[in-house]
Amino acid sequence: VTKQHFLDSFFNPESVAIVGASRNPLNFNFYLVGNLVKLGFSGRIYPVNPNADEILGMKAYASVKDIEDGIDLVVSAVPARMTLDIMKECVDKKVKCVVLVSGGFSEGGAQGDKMQDEIASLLKRNGIRAIGPNALSPINSLNNLAISFFPLEKLIGGGVSFIFQSGLYEPRLKWLFSDYHLGISKLIDLGNKMDINEVDALEYLADDPDTKVIAIHLESVKGDGRRFVQLLKNTSEKKPVVVLKSGRTAAGAKAAASHTGSMARGSDAVFDAMLKQSGVIRAQTIEDFLDFAKAFEFLSPPTGNRIAIGSMSGGEGVLAIDMCQREGFTMAKAEYTTFDRLKSILPPWETPLNPFDLGVCVQFHPFLDVYKKFLESMVGDKNVDGVVVGLPPIGILFESEGAHKPFLLGKEKKKPVVLWTHAVDESLNALVEKLEWEGVPVYPSAERAIKALSVVYKYKLMHERAS
Amino acid sequence: VTKQHFLDSFFNPESVAIVGASRNPLNFNFYLVGNLVKLGFSGRIYPVNPNADEILGMKAYASVKDIEDGIDLVVSAVPARMTLDIMKECVDKKVKCVVLVSGGFSEGGAQGDKMQDEIASLLKRNGIRAIGPNALSPINSLNNLAISFFPLEKLIGGGVSFIFQSGLYEPRLKWLFSDYHLGISKLIDLGNKMDINEVDALEYLADDPDTKVIAIHLESVKGDGRRFVQLLKNTSEKKPVVVLKSGRTAAGAKAAASHTGSMARGSDAVFDAMLKQSGVIRAQTIEDFLDFAKAFEFLSPPTGNRIAIGSMSGGEGVLAIDMCQREGFTMAKAEYTTFDRLKSILPPWETPLNPFDLGVCVQFHPFLDVYKKFLESMVGDKNVDGVVVGLPPIGILFESEGAHKPFLLGKEKKKPVVLWTHAVDESLNALVEKLEWEGVPVYPSAERAIKALSVVYKYKLMHERAS
Repeated sequence: VTKQHFLDSFFNPESVAIVGASRNPLNFNFYLVGNLVKLGFSGRIYPVNPNADEILGMKAYASVKDIEDGIDLVVSAVPARMTLDIMKECVDKKVKCVVLVSGGFSEGGAQGDKMQDEIASLLKRNGIRAIGPNALSPINSLNNLAISFFPLEKLIGGGVSFIFQSGLYEPRLKWLFSDYHLGISKLIDLGNKMDINEVDALEYLADDPDTKVIAIHLESVKGDGRRFVQLLKNTSEKKPVVVLKSGRTAAGAKAAASHTGSMARGSDAVFDAMLKQSGVIRAQTIEDFLDFAKAFEFLSPPTGNRIAIGSMSGGEGVLAIDMCQREGFTMAKAEYTTFDRLKSILPPWETPLNPFDLGVCVQFHPFLDVYKKFLESMVGDKNVDGVVVGLPPIGILFESEGAHKPFLLGKEKKKPVVLWTHAVDESLNALVEKLEWEGVPVYPSAERAIKALSVVYKYKLMHERAS
Repeated sequence: VTKQHFLDSFFNPESVAIVGASRNPLNFNFYLVGNLVKLGFSGRIYPVNPNADEILGMKAYASVKDIEDGIDLVVSAVPARMTLDIMKECVDKKVKCVVLVSGGFSEGGAQGDKMQDEIASLLKRNGIRAIGPNALSPINSLNNLAISFFPLEKLIGGGVSFIFQSGLYEPRLKWLFSDYHLGISKLIDLGNKMDINEVDALEYLADDPDTKVIAIHLESVKGDGRRFVQLLKNTSEKKPVVVLKSGRTAAGAKAAASHTGSMARGSDAVFDAMLKQSGVIRAQTIEDFLDFAKAFEFLSPPTGNRIAIGSMSGGEGVLAIDMCQREGFTMAKAEYTTFDRLKSILPPWETPLNPFDLGVCVQFHPFLDVYKKFLESMVGDKNVDGVVVGLPPIGILFESEGAHKPFLLGKEKKKPVVLWTHAVDESLNALVEKLEWEGVPVYPSAERAIKALSVVYKYKLMHERAS
C-alpha cells in the first residue's frame, strides 16, 4: 500500500469549513463559499460566521468548534490579528489541514511576522499542516474544490497542474479555467510558505497520476534548495515541468520579499544554472508560461525538426520561418508526391510549398478545400515532422458541420499540428473553442505557436539524451 | 508653393476605377468596391466588369476607356495574363496612377517575371506610376479610400501610417482598423515593388502632416539602400519610425523572395547596423510592431526613467519590476507626501508603495477609491516619470459614469499612464475601448505595457542625444 502524501487531504477533503464566509457578493469572501456551491464541490461545506444564521442556503456556524462533524480542511479568511484564535479552535477540533487566506503576516512588517511565527509554532506543536498565509488555494477540478476570491463559472479538467508562489494568476483565474481552454487538474498557491512550500507541492504533483504537466511559478525557494533541484530533475524525467521565475532582478527580488515575505537566496544566475541542469523548461513571461503548458497538454512531440508552414499571407509565412529558424527548426522539404496531392488547390502559377501561401490559393479555390488538402498532404508527408497553420480571419467559413475536422488529422497520426489566429470575432472564437476542446492548440500569433511547439521538441530532445 | 509628392494622387484620388469588380460577395474582388461604398469613399467610384450592367447600384463599365470622366486611379484586379491589356487601356485613357492587385507576376516564376517586365516598361514609357503588383492598397482614413479583399466596417483615423511590404496585415486588417483602437492615417502595401518602393513611400509619409508615427514592415530593400537609410535617419528626427524586418534568416529571405519577388540584398547583420545608425525603433515580432505604434500614437514620453507600478496581484508586480529593469527603467521612490495621500486606501499593515498592491487594498477599501487615489498620487508625484497599472478582471466595476476618469489624469499632466489587462469579458472590452478612445493604451500584459512605454522613452533619449 502506497502511503498517501499529506497534501492529498488538501486536494481531496470530504469536508471543508470556510471561516469568514460572507453573505455579501460585494465582499471577496463571498466567493470562498460561492464558488464551491456554484461549481458543485463534491464534499460537505460548512460556512463559519458568528454574525450569520445561514449563507447560501446552508447553516452558518459561529465557530469551527460548533460543527457537529469532523472537518478535513479549514479555510481561514478572517483578519490577521484574529487568525491565532481560529487556529486554537482548529487545534481543539482536531483539524489536520488549514489554508490561511488572509494577508498581513510576514509580508506586512515586524508585527505580522510575529503573528505568523506564533501561528506556525502552534500548528507545528499540534501536527497541523498549513498552506499560506496570504494564499488562495487549492483548486482541484476533479472534485470541484476551488478556493478563490473571484467568481468561477466552470473548471475545465485536464492534465496541467500549477504551483504558484502568489496570486499572480488570480486576475486571470476565470479566463484560465474556461476561456483559455487549458485542461487543469490542480492548482496550489503557496503564499508566504510558512509551512508548505514548493518542495512539498512538487513532491505531491510528481506522483499525482492525474497530473501530466507541471507548471511552477516561483519568486524564491523556501524549502531545501538542493532537494528541490533533485526533485525537479527526477520529475522532469517523468513529465514536463515548466518554470516561470520572477523577482529575477534585484528590485524584483526585493518586491517579492515584501509581498510574500520570502527572500530569494542566491542570485538569479545561480538559480538559472540549477534549472538548466534539472531538465525543466523555463518561461520568461507569463504568456510563455501558459503557452508552454498548453503545448505540453495538447501536443505529441515532433519526431524531428522539419516543419511545414501554411499561412493566409506570404508575409506571415516569412515571419514564421524566421521564428522556426530561431527556435532550431528547419523548413521541411515535402515529398515529391505531395506536390501532386496539392495540385488541385494551387494558383495558376509556380508557388513554393513551404511556406505555403493558403491566402493565394483561396483566391482560386474553395476555402475549405484548400485547408483540407494542405493539412492532409502535410500530415501525411514523411518529410514533415510538424505543421504550423494560420487560420483565416473569418470564422464563419468553418461553421458548417465537420469543417474543422481536417485540423484534427494530426491527432490521429500523432504529428503535432499547431494553429494561430488573431481571433477577434465570435465565429472565430467559436472555432478556436471547438478546436481546443479536441486538443488542437490555437495561439494568437505564428511566433507564439512556433515557440510553443519548439519547447515540446526541446523537452523531447533533453529526455532522449538523458535516457 | 510646395510641389505635391506623386503618391498624393494615390491616397487622394477624386475618382477610382476598379477593374475586375465583382457582384458576388463570395468573391474577394467584391470588397474592392464594397468597402468603398460601405465606408463612404469621398470620391467617385467606377466599377469595371464587361459581364455586369451594374454593381452595388452603380453603373458597371465594360472597359476603363468607356468611362465618360477622367480617372485619377485605376485598381486592376484581373488575372495576371489579362493585366497588360488593361494597362494599355489605361495608357489610352491617360490614367497616371495604377494599383496592380493581382498576383502571379515576379513572385510566380519566369513567365510571371516576363509579364511584369512588359508591364513595367509600358507604364514607364507612358509616365504611369504603379503600386504592386501583388499589393492591396492604398488605405486612407481621411477620405475613406480602402482597397482590400476583406470587409471593413470602419476606419478609425489617427496619426499612425503603415508601409507594408506584403499582405502581412491583411488577416488582421478589420481588427487593426477597429478593434485595436489604433488611429490610422494611411496604409500602403508595396507588394512586388515593380515601380513604387519603400523609398517613395517613406518620402511621402515623412512629409505628410497627418502622419505622426510611421510603421514600416520590410522583407527587402528594393530602392536605393543608402538613400533609404538617410531618409530613415532624417525622418526619425522628425517623427518616430518603427521597423519590422522579416526574412531575417536565410530561409526567411528565400521565402520572402518567392512571395513578392524581391531578393534581400546584404545580410541581416548589415541591415541591422544600418537601422541602428538611423535612429529608428526596431520591432522583432508583429505584436511588438503594433504595440510600439500604439505607444507612439498615444503616449507622451516620460521625462525620466522612474516608473511606478500598480497591480492587482503582488506576483504581477514582481514580474512588472523585472521587466522595468530589463528595459532600462528604475523603480520610482515616491515623494514623502505621497504616502499620506495614499493612507486612506492602505491595508491595515505596512505595505510597499512600489510596486503598489492594489489587489490587497481593494480587500479593505472600495475599488474605485483605490484606483483613483493611486492614480492621483502617482501622476501628481514629482519623483514618478511614468505609471503602469493593471486593471482588475471585472469590468463592471468601472461601468458607472466617469469611473474611468482617473485613468485619464496622465493625459492632462503629460505623464504617461499605461494600462494592462487580460481583457476577456464584454465589460472589460468596453472599458478598454473607452480608455483607448481617449488615448490611454491598454496592453494584454504588464510585460507588453512596459516594453511599449520603454520604446517611447528610448526614442526620446535618442532624439535628445541627436539634437
